[in-house]
Amino acid sequence: MLIVAERINATRKRIRRAIEERDTALIQKEAVQQAQAGGDYIDANAGIDVDREADDLAWLVQTIQAAVDKPLCIDSTYGPAQAAALKLHKGQAIVNSISAEEGRSAEILPLVQQYNTLLVGLTMESTVPTDKEGRLAAAETIVRIVKGAGIGLDRLLFDPVVATAATDPNAPLAVRDTIVEMKQRWPECRTIVGLSNVSFGLPVRTHLNRTFLAFLIEAGLDAAIIDPTEPNMVATVRAAEALLGKDEFCMNYITAHREGLL
Amino acid sequence: MLIVAERINATRKRIRRAIEERDTALIQKEAVQQAQAGGDYIDANAGIDVDREADDLAWLVQTIQAAVDKPLCIDSTYGPAQAAALKLHKGQAIVNSISAEEGRSAEILPLVQQYNTLLVGLTMESTVPTDKEGRLAAAETIVRIVKGAGIGLDRLLFDPVVATAATDPNAPLAVRDTIVEMKQRWPECRTIVGLSNVSFGLPVRTHLNRTFLAFLIEAGLDAAIIDPTEPNMVATVRAAEALLGKDEFCMNYITAHREGLL
Repeated sequence: MLIVAERINATRKRIRRAIEERDTALIQKEAVQQAQAGGDYIDANAGIDVDREADDLAWLVQTIQAAVDKPLCIDSTYGPAQAAALKLHKGQAIVNSISAEEGRSAEILPLVQQYNTLLVGLTMESTVPTDKEGRLAAAETIVRIVKGAGIGLDRLLFDPVVATAATDPNAPLAVRDTIVEMKQRWPECRTIVGLSNVSFGLPVRTHLNRTFLAFLIEAGLDAAIIDPTEPNMVATVRAAEALLGKDEFCMNYITAHREGLL
Repeated sequence: MLIVAERINATRKRIRRAIEERDTALIQKEAVQQAQAGGDYIDANAGIDVDREADDLAWLVQTIQAAVDKPLCIDSTYGPAQAAALKLHKGQAIVNSISAEEGRSAEILPLVQQYNTLLVGLTMESTVPTDKEGRLAAAETIVRIVKGAGIGLDRLLFDPVVATAATDPNAPLAVRDTIVEMKQRWPECRTIVGLSNVSFGLPVRTHLNRTFLAFLIEAGLDAAIIDPTEPNMVATVRAAEALLGKDEFCMNYITAHREGLL
């Protein structure tokens, strides 16, 4: 399973400040730590201030890729910011994201085409569906939008949009069941989640986050946006793969141990 | 899910010595710690020296139950030792265990009847089956043996006998799938595992143990023999229950947090 490392996100105050102050050292340290901890992609989110997002995101892309040899997950729904970032990006990026709202994808899809990126499709319109059926209906719309733009479904990652267990006991299972059914209906597509919402509002969130991640890997999840430096998180990914017969003779698990990642 | 706390087991040297030296303080400390950490049953294993096992096990039962108000899982296949232990036991014990070998149950089943205990049935004969089918065939035999002794299947806990992922990548999934099918075929029976064998021979076993436990709870596991004092173990149980909709509004999870168990 692919790990998208989530820490470089301007909703976190110290990252916001580092971006504003062009603090190269702090951003690069975050990038290196996350890559060393097991991140396959580094998420880059420069915030929601549209006046400066294009400049900020372009700076983030260059700053991160000067420090680590990893592709990025470029986290912006604003076309000009995506354009500025992708122009500078090395390798195959993940563009995060479009949704089932037609208007939201108009600026993004030509860039996905031009730069041959992967693409996250959030299975929601203006609100997040509470059940599997609503998510699958939004997924249908996304498939139509993506195909209509001439983009292969093998470049699409569905994000079923995780909600917290605190207010709806069925929310985690709805996401798990959605992933199982997505894999059956669109086998060429992949799935991704932003994990930590599952524990929003609850104490000691790490137990819920990593146990839910194990359940989703079992369901067939292809990628997760997580903090790989969080204790036990990457270990849970490797353990799940070993237990599910996806890691023959546990060689990846044993290698992760030797590399100090467990 | 029920937690059977496994630490008081004579295969561990310090427990063996404590039993030999009648070290009441050490055994009671182990019992209290495990009960406080979330153990629902306390396992009592006095070793395999038949000359003294009956005396040792009887002492263990009295010593543990003098310290904690919990029923025990009495871990012996030797009839006279079970008889000595059950005579002194307060509450409804779990007798651990019989298997699909007819001879192994002859002394045990009358005691299960007499003392109205629960009973673990290991789904194996002289060797552990490697696949689901072999385990289910052994389970059929156990059902016949137990019914033949006039014991209700609601008192039976199947133990599908966990094997390590190190030598057979399919071993963990075979156990998971066995549990799923057992729950369908014999809905009145329950399931239990000795968890930690799954990681035998592998490094940093805790990640494999607790991730596997989460998978088995999802499959419908009713009880696990674990060390509740192991970091993150009980937290994984409570997290899994919350995520699987078995803990409405996460109240048990939040309570476990307030009690310092996460």
